[in-house]
Amino acid sequence: MADLTHLDDYGKAHMVSVSGKAETVRKAVASGRIVMSKEALAAIRDNGVPKGDVFAAARIAGIMAAKKTADLIPLCHPLALESVTVDFIVEEDAIRVCAMAALTGKTGVEMEALTAACVSLLTIYDMVKSIDKAMVIENVRLQSKTGGKSGDWHAAA
Amino acid sequence: MADLTHLDDYGKAHMVSVSGKAETVRKAVASGRIVMSKEALAAIRDNGVPKGDVFAAARIAGIMAAKKTADLIPLCHPLALESVTVDFIVEEDAIRVCAMAALTGKTGVEMEALTAACVSLLTIYDMVKSIDKAMVIENVRLQSKTGGKSGDWHAAA
Amino acid sequence: MADLTHLDDYGKAHMVSVSGKAETVRKAVASGRIVMSKEALAAIRDNGVPKGDVFAAARIAGIMAAKKTADLIPLCHPLALESVTVDFIVEEDAIRVCAMAALTGKTGVEMEALTAACVSLLTIYDMVKSIDKAMVIENVRLQSKTGGKSGDWHAAA
Amino acid sequence: MADLTHLDDYGKAHMVSVSGKAETVRKAVASGRIVMSKEALAAIRDNGVPKGDVFAAARIAGIMAAKKTADLIPLCHPLALESVTVDFIVEEDAIRVCAMAALTGKTGVEMEALTAACVSLLTIYDMVKSIDKAMVIENVRLQSKTGGKSGDWHAAA
Amino acid sequence: MADLTHLDDYGKAHMVSVSGKAETVRKAVASGRIVMSKEALAAIRDNGVPKGDVFAAARIAGIMAAKKTADLIPLCHPLALESVTVDFIVEEDAIRVCAMAALTGKTGVEMEALTAACVSLLTIYDMVKSIDKAMVIENVRLQSKTGGKSGDWHAAA
Amino acid sequence: MADLTHLDDYGKAHMVSVSGKAETVRKAVASGRIVMSKEALAAIRDNGVPKGDVFAAARIAGIMAAKKTADLIPLCHPLALESVTVDFIVEEDAIRVCAMAALTGKTGVEMEALTAACVSLLTIYDMVKSIDKAMVIENVRLQSKTGGKSGDWHAAA
Repeated sequence: MADLTHLDDYGKAHMVSVSGKAETVRKAVASGRIVMSKEALAAIRDNGVPKGDVFAAARIAGIMAAKKTADLIPLCHPLALESVTVDFIVEEDAIRVCAMAALTGKTGVEMEALTAACVSLLTIYDMVKSIDKAMVIENVRLQSKTGGKSGDWHAAA
Repeated sequence: MADLTHLDDYGKAHMVSVSGKAETVRKAVASGRIVMSKEALAAIRDNGVPKGDVFAAARIAGIMAAKKTADLIPLCHPLALESVTVDFIVEEDAIRVCAMAALTGKTGVEMEALTAACVSLLTIYDMVKSIDKAMVIENVRLQSKTGGKSGDWHAAA
Repeated sequence: MADLTHLDDYGKAHMVSVSGKAETVRKAVASGRIVMSKEALAAIRDNGVPKGDVFAAARIAGIMAAKKTADLIPLCHPLALESVTVDFIVEEDAIRVCAMAALTGKTGVEMEALTAACVSLLTIYDMVKSIDKAMVIENVRLQSKTGGKSGDWHAAA
Repeated sequence: MADLTHLDDYGKAHMVSVSGKAETVRKAVASGRIVMSKEALAAIRDNGVPKGDVFAAARIAGIMAAKKTADLIPLCHPLALESVTVDFIVEEDAIRVCAMAALTGKTGVEMEALTAACVSLLTIYDMVKSIDKAMVIENVRLQSKTGGKSGDWHAAA
Repeated sequence: MADLTHLDDYGKAHMVSVSGKAETVRKAVASGRIVMSKEALAAIRDNGVPKGDVFAAARIAGIMAAKKTADLIPLCHPLALESVTVDFIVEEDAIRVCAMAALTGKTGVEMEALTAACVSLLTIYDMVKSIDKAMVIENVRLQSKTGGKSGDWHAAA
Repeated sequence: MADLTHLDDYGKAHMVSVSGKAETVRKAVASGRIVMSKEALAAIRDNGVPKGDVFAAARIAGIMAAKKTADLIPLCHPLALESVTVDFIVEEDAIRVCAMAALTGKTGVEMEALTAACVSLLTIYDMVKSIDKAMVIENVRLQSKTGGKSGDWHAAA
């Protein structure tokens, strides 16, 4: 019944080995935004959101989510993050989030920064959805990664 | 020192009570997309992504993430989800994800559907990032919610 | 070798059955305090703690911990919490926390309220420990529980 | 590009809907065993395992694992378990575990009982592996399930 | 709208960077106690607690909680603990817990020891609460920390 | 009351210290199988399992479970896994799973490989149980471990 085994022969997911890679300081920055109505933005600005302080909750949620990345993304390596920050900028029609993750290790932290950004944005949605259900998360992307053998990378302007 | 306590008096986050709400069948659908290069899209299409089968990993990750929503989003209620599906559509320059969550309960499942969509998209990023680091997650939004006292809601076309 | 099996015969931990119990609205309130130096208290009051806003982090941590209770306390039943609040009072030499949890269910939520209180206090310790390592968590107790067949219970004054 | 979408058209994993099912009392029993050397069995019997009390650790681990089932098995529904027990029998060449899970709900608890049994056996392996690395977990199976529309099921004798 | 951004300018929580710190052996010891009635203490002593062996459950819970510290305390770094112990002393009106955590790393393990102590005490409360709901957790504190650049620290006698 | 303290004096579970051990490349391989009916095996082979692609779900579940090992097994050290693979072989009456885990660290990864194998097998059970409830997990064992002071170990043929 050897022919059955081909079912297992293509596209097999696996956590790629990083055993041979060098430990270097690695850092990644990701950003994204959530577009919302003027009413929703005003409620955040005036601290008038019924569920509470939006930025505090979204920041904590993003930092904690960065630590859960390997538990969420199937093939991510568990990493000992050494630093995480999450910041917000209030734009004319949106809140922009910028997340940074860093460590000294064998693999990059792009997914940790991206996960922090996404979960911060989802938390904003959750806090404000009683005011505006049509909010849209957009433009979530890696801004830069530094450290590691493959060299630094920066998003095109 | 009563004046100190005002530090605690505004914008306090809390998990709002749903004790008085009725149990009804509730369902939410969310969607989003990840824009990528033709090379990345071809690799997914031809099952040529080194990390393995992208759709299988992203679908499982999205379903499992829906179950983790209350662990990720600070003020979400823990919910006994009764159904979750995650589907993908290959578009010309992107993969589109559509996630559905449903239960019989006292509060809606918008965050579960949105979380499933986001984590599926993050998983696609992780699987394909060796080919294209400039992928962008965009247009993550609620498409519809049904059930519950506040009535049904559908995104504007 | 029947005599060996007695190793298993005493004190066996088990999650007690609540299948026969009625679903009622249940609520529990717990409190506790963390005693600290004047310097530490002033730093919190003046928002001068290097790690950030102490109350916001401690409140979110307490609410999220309430949802993790069954994952922390071995024999606790997993519960669908319907409401959680965490509040702080600044006292002369301490921060006092008061946590409330509620649900409609078959078993009480004392452990959820106590866990929220403890993790909020631990988070305050973590945020402020660079200023004062000698802080002491004390007087963590159940204040009241209501609902359920065994009747209401209130701590002695 | 319709032909691309077929990648998504077969074998799609999904959490099947149980919304239409009735809430009934459901119970499942699973068992399994770990075969080991006389030396390992004697160490457990004489409480001489360096890592500590094997049964206490394995029992707690099994009960806690039952509560994590939906976090481990991708398509399992999150369930509000109402009762879990884990028991051990010392056999001539093995430890046998018997795990029971029960709830009032819309879907069965077979996976919860099986997960409790497996993690209890893995914990025994971990506690005793310094004495015997060749231990084998075997005969892990469902013994019975009761409740639910499809009727009761018992393993053949 | 630049004035809005000040909402984000004070007290921002962040996981402080430890990238530049040296890896050293670090150890922390924390203790605490739970005061209870003579009846509750006798039940523990006589192994007469209906839920099972109190010390075994509380010890395992404390050790497992130490490993969850970064998942509970928002700004704690994820750490690769190398050793955890939890011990109990039966006092005249209380159970005292003493928890130790250690690792070779860039940051201290005070929070891990304190979390282990708190969760052990909460587990005792849960096991014994059917006998005594008025138990009080008190005097949870750091006893010592060793290793790291800032030098050793011991609680005043 | 010193005599009471003996309750705590035997068989105390603890996470053994690995602080003094050297960091080396460590690898472990575990295997196991799930025996099933011809009907169940045919459904997997023909991709006719209603819940979806069995191998994709079981592989992802096994890899993710390897990362949760320290959360499941009470005395396991949290480890920064550097590689995990899970493979399947279709046998005449069973599916065989082979799981590999590796890292550079102070302690072995046997439990990670065994946990990946068990959870993959449990996931197969979950996916196929609507067709065959009598499936049996058997022969779960360590095949080999390499690296570390105690030398390599291979299961007897």
